[in-house]
Amino acid sequence: MRFLSFHVDFFRYKVTKKGRSPIIEEITENNKENQINDALILFISMEKQDETKPDLLIRSIREIEKIINQLKISNLVIIPFAHLFGQLSTIEFAFESFKKIESMLTTQGFSVLRLPFGWFNELEMKTKGHPLSRISRIIE
Amino acid sequence: MRFLSFHVDFFRYKVTKKGRSPIIEEITENNKENQINDALILFISMEKQDETKPDLLIRSIREIEKIINQLKISNLVIIPFAHLFGQLSTIEFAFESFKKIESMLTTQGFSVLRLPFGWFNELEMKTKGHPLSRISRIIE
Repeated sequence: MRFLSFHVDFFRYKVTKKGRSPIIEEITENNKENQINDALILFISMEKQDETKPDLLIRSIREIEKIINQLKISNLVIIPFAHLFGQLSTIEFAFESFKKIESMLTTQGFSVLRLPFGWFNELEMKTKGHPLSRISRIIE
Repeated sequence: MRFLSFHVDFFRYKVTKKGRSPIIEEITENNKENQINDALILFISMEKQDETKPDLLIRSIREIEKIINQLKISNLVIIPFAHLFGQLSTIEFAFESFKKIESMLTTQGFSVLRLPFGWFNELEMKTKGHPLSRISRIIE
């Protein structure tokens, strides 16, 4: 798993149209658009190696928690994102993993916005300008 | 060279504080903050291999031009960005390369906003939600 994160003052998204993925999540009034303030935005790719090493998901979640705690915030956004130069996992594995990450971080008490899988979207955000406001990590 | 691009409705930046880079570009009234509409935002890393292969810079510029022409726009933003998982070139080489990219694309008739080197900054942007609105490329 790898991610690129931004610490933002605000973030908004709005689903636009279906992608070419074989998995297209159902869109409802609840997930077609949303916004959140003072959050950690995570552009995430699940990778080939994650499929056979379940502990990588746990370690990834710990890494995310560590950053959130460092920033002293409690909101985060999960954006499925294929453009981080990694060797991607299957679509099915990625979708299940993103739901697990959402569920485990929600259980930890964080507010998690997970963007619908398989859709194009408009993103609006304002990133902060401090040294930890952009981070990239590969968990392997 | 590798980049991650977003096609945006608008983009704004504002320099915040000096980074830890040995090269810190001078800040003036002209480059401390700026904004642009309907642009291609490029988060760019220069890589080790670029240092010994000058044709990679030319090919990178051609690739950027191709995307801009596909999107039928003429504005672009160059954001020096170390967080794309590549093996980075020296700081000096990266700085010189970003200035060359700016100069060559300006000569081609594009409006280019190059963010000051070595600074942290706040970024504000609204990305479009079409299939070409995010692209990542490695030129090698």
